[in-house]
Amino acid sequence: MLSEFDLIKQYFVQDYAQNSPQDSRFALGIGDDCALLNPSQGMQLAISSDMLVSGRHFFPDADPYLLGHKCLAVNLSDLAAMGAKPLAFTLALSLPEANRDWLAAFSQGLLGLAKTHQCRLIGGDTTKGPLNICITILGELPPAAALRRDAAQVGDDIWISGTLGDARLALAAYWKELDLDETSHQQAAIRMHQPTPRVALGIALRGIAHAALDISDGLIGDLGHILAASKVGASLYVDELPAGSILQTQSTKLRREFTLAGGDDYELCFTAPVAQRDAVMQASKISNTRVTRIGNIDSEPGLRLLDQNKQPLDLHLKSFDHFTSP
Amino acid sequence: MLSEFDLIKQYFVQDYAQNSPQDSRFALGIGDDCALLNPSQGMQLAISSDMLVSGRHFFPDADPYLLGHKCLAVNLSDLAAMGAKPLAFTLALSLPEANRDWLAAFSQGLLGLAKTHQCRLIGGDTTKGPLNICITILGELPPAAALRRDAAQVGDDIWISGTLGDARLALAAYWKELDLDETSHQQAAIRMHQPTPRVALGIALRGIAHAALDISDGLIGDLGHILAASKVGASLYVDELPAGSILQTQSTKLRREFTLAGGDDYELCFTAPVAQRDAVMQASKISNTRVTRIGNIDSEPGLRLLDQNKQPLDLHLKSFDHFTSP
Repeated sequence: MLSEFDLIKQYFVQDYAQNSPQDSRFALGIGDDCALLNPSQGMQLAISSDMLVSGRHFFPDADPYLLGHKCLAVNLSDLAAMGAKPLAFTLALSLPEANRDWLAAFSQGLLGLAKTHQCRLIGGDTTKGPLNICITILGELPPAAALRRDAAQVGDDIWISGTLGDARLALAAYWKELDLDETSHQQAAIRMHQPTPRVALGIALRGIAHAALDISDGLIGDLGHILAASKVGASLYVDELPAGSILQTQSTKLRREFTLAGGDDYELCFTAPVAQRDAVMQASKISNTRVTRIGNIDSEPGLRLLDQNKQPLDLHLKSFDHFTSP
Repeated sequence: MLSEFDLIKQYFVQDYAQNSPQDSRFALGIGDDCALLNPSQGMQLAISSDMLVSGRHFFPDADPYLLGHKCLAVNLSDLAAMGAKPLAFTLALSLPEANRDWLAAFSQGLLGLAKTHQCRLIGGDTTKGPLNICITILGELPPAAALRRDAAQVGDDIWISGTLGDARLALAAYWKELDLDETSHQQAAIRMHQPTPRVALGIALRGIAHAALDISDGLIGDLGHILAASKVGASLYVDELPAGSILQTQSTKLRREFTLAGGDDYELCFTAPVAQRDAVMQASKISNTRVTRIGNIDSEPGLRLLDQNKQPLDLHLKSFDHFTSP
């Protein structure tokens, strides 16, 4: 039987010495009571933890390769939302059984994305129990460069990266809330299973954007956190929200609902002064990431949803909450 | 109903500004995509993650105050085993429901111990799901000061802090493997529910001890990690192992078994040169932590268990493994 130590050694310990140049920041990796890091001198550390629970954040029979990717992607997305550069992460894993096929695929998905972002697995924990994956990620950024939620200013443009709503559309099709042809469903599901963390965009927006966060529970709820922290209001141009390529083919009602309150988008929502519009477009180009201007920060408290004629929309939407949502 | 954000705000956000002097290392705490830390200049970071699962690491009806204490204690113990000073931690929590009484008691146990060790809760995640608690802890230490598993040298003494086996004895009584009177059971159970992380001892042993780790899965198994990493062997004086105060009253057979392969002890096992015996005793005094010399590091591979006449014992014990143990 596969022991805890064999499991870690076989699937999660990478031979970095062979694959990457020596990096003196990594003093000690997996295998001791703690990992040891030498942070880059003068840099600030950004730290975030996310826990993904089977049946809650993913289907119990989820493809383990995609699941490995997604677990790390949602954490990288938190670093992106602060403008931090990925450094290292720990993985705590509760598994019903030590299944070799599952572990091989999961670790490939996880470590593949880690390699792409040069983010090293430095430690963690494995135990037997209901499937639960908890990652804590560490990134670096210059002091005072962080894109914080409390930094939006009246007059800022509001921007969003990529497109919204296809992940929620795929979920709706899984839940039989609506019909979607097989090809469309598969394409939308890519957005649900393999989110792309906007790390390069977050870094490119340092010194340009004011506030930022990543959209995980739905745009209006998450934007609400920026408004509350920054003590400002906002107007959103609902019909200018960039819908995902499959959601674009659906009704206006569905498009509005899933772009505004979809969830699982992992796009960056950020604010920036009007004078920085060219700089934002340049950051978009550098990071090869589409951005769209979707509204304004106002002094009037609250969030106003406007249609294409700038008339108010009353949509009665709410964001996902882990304890009050079904 | 208690929402995810109310839950965090009400039970886990502490007003440090009121309770502790300003500390410029803490740039941003709970409430953004990431926490931000300014590590002390020139210090190394020690990082560890532990995941505790209901029914596996604790009883589903465990006292939430004690559980809050224990979750952080086992992480502090990992820092202690490296000789690191606690700095900050993240908490990821999966809960079947947002129960106010449970959360109030759990957060009191957790944050009480955090305050004792000046270790700040800086972020985390809460979600609905089977009860699972994952803490990632960060500590600081001078470069090259870490007490690593691979640093034991032939000729070193082997030492253990505190006493061993009472936690395992309490578990045996819960499992009805043996009879224990109520008072004894309660007293032994304190060791199981409220382990004392040996943080002050770990720090005091910097520059004195060679290798160290904390005993969580049982002495012989955990000491085996030092032997493997350091490529050495060892002799243990089994009858000199410091048994817990309740275990002392039990049979020699039980005392040997539970001191050698108990688990959940959270004591430090460390090696130090013979020339450092006085310095070890001084570290013990400074940290107000009992230490006992229990064996030697040898060049001959393997672990030899010796009785009081230095005769080999063959006890057929093994350490706990999360995937091969029942």
